[in-house]
Amino acid sequence: MEIAIPLFDRFTALDAVGPYEVLSRIPGARVTFVAAEPGPKRTETRMLTLTAEVSLAEMPEPEVIVVPGGLGTRDLMTDEQILGWIRRAHSRSQWTTSVCTGSLLLAAAGILDGLEATTHWLELKTLARYGAQPVERRVVEQGKLITAAGVSSGIDMALTLACHIAGPDVAQAIQLGIEYDPEPPFDAGSTRTAPERIVELVRLAAG
Amino acid sequence: MEIAIPLFDRFTALDAVGPYEVLSRIPGARVTFVAAEPGPKRTETRMLTLTAEVSLAEMPEPEVIVVPGGLGTRDLMTDEQILGWIRRAHSRSQWTTSVCTGSLLLAAAGILDGLEATTHWLELKTLARYGAQPVERRVVEQGKLITAAGVSSGIDMALTLACHIAGPDVAQAIQLGIEYDPEPPFDAGSTRTAPERIVELVRLAAG
Repeated sequence: MEIAIPLFDRFTALDAVGPYEVLSRIPGARVTFVAAEPGPKRTETRMLTLTAEVSLAEMPEPEVIVVPGGLGTRDLMTDEQILGWIRRAHSRSQWTTSVCTGSLLLAAAGILDGLEATTHWLELKTLARYGAQPVERRVVEQGKLITAAGVSSGIDMALTLACHIAGPDVAQAIQLGIEYDPEPPFDAGSTRTAPERIVELVRLAAG
Repeated sequence: MEIAIPLFDRFTALDAVGPYEVLSRIPGARVTFVAAEPGPKRTETRMLTLTAEVSLAEMPEPEVIVVPGGLGTRDLMTDEQILGWIRRAHSRSQWTTSVCTGSLLLAAAGILDGLEATTHWLELKTLARYGAQPVERRVVEQGKLITAAGVSSGIDMALTLACHIAGPDVAQAIQLGIEYDPEPPFDAGSTRTAPERIVELVRLAAG
């Protein structure tokens, strides 16, 4: 199964690598990092470089696409090279998925019109502006479209997807293989549970 | 604060990128990927390349080290280049940490002798052979040494470490920023909770 993860300048590392770590373990799956221009891509915090091996043009019809988010999505909201690729890939894909603000690119491509979807909690209103119906859930499924909330939620999304692709035994084996038995040291991962001052701190930092 | 993450051929992507995503968000932190020979490093599943920017020799005394695991650790258990670097870096570090089988390298370097430590559940016995006292916990702290269990546990470890370095408000803000409010689709992330047949499946696959 051909799985494509598009990269771009200033993507969020964990948005891409969380799903990669899960999906690359599905028997028979091949994950390829693609980009408008193949080559090194810097993450949002500029301290890490991942390599996109193949151009979007060389991989027009992967069976699964996983679109990560990151500050770099802001520069791509009218970029027909990536949006056109998403539109065409989605027309043939078995699964079209996103993590964090990757769903803003799906929405900008027009494929979330009227559908429920999610994104990073700071960007739910932006998602609505692009025609989707924002939902505050960690993983939102609408047929073959699956969107995930912020950054780390891509791991949960990918395990859900692994179950659809390869069944619950494979998905559980992958979960055990990556020892995904989370024990966050704080109960601060959601605006529902984080202290109000922490929510404000993050809002302010995001500008 | 200078944080070094050593890479090597066949490391596990999420072991390195989970902590990277957390630690790179600490105000004033700089995360650098280092290697014996700088350049592209392939992950365990061979489908992804991260770039090590700086040589081990160029960064002998980072304040924090995070050693990831992966199949590639097996080739390094007697490699004095990396083991010597770990030993020296640890002698000056503020924090010395590992994820998954990264702790086997710490143990092989001799810095876990007689100390409690953890690793991927499949490798706890190996850890004992190298002189540590294996413990089945997700994050194990012994003074400035922090070891984490398999792959995804690096996120929990890094949030714990972020709290030590920058305090609980910063750690919680990072947790909310990466929306780390995990909802694994199965309760299969630990040998305590996974169905016995899934545990056997993963044991067999690991050889």
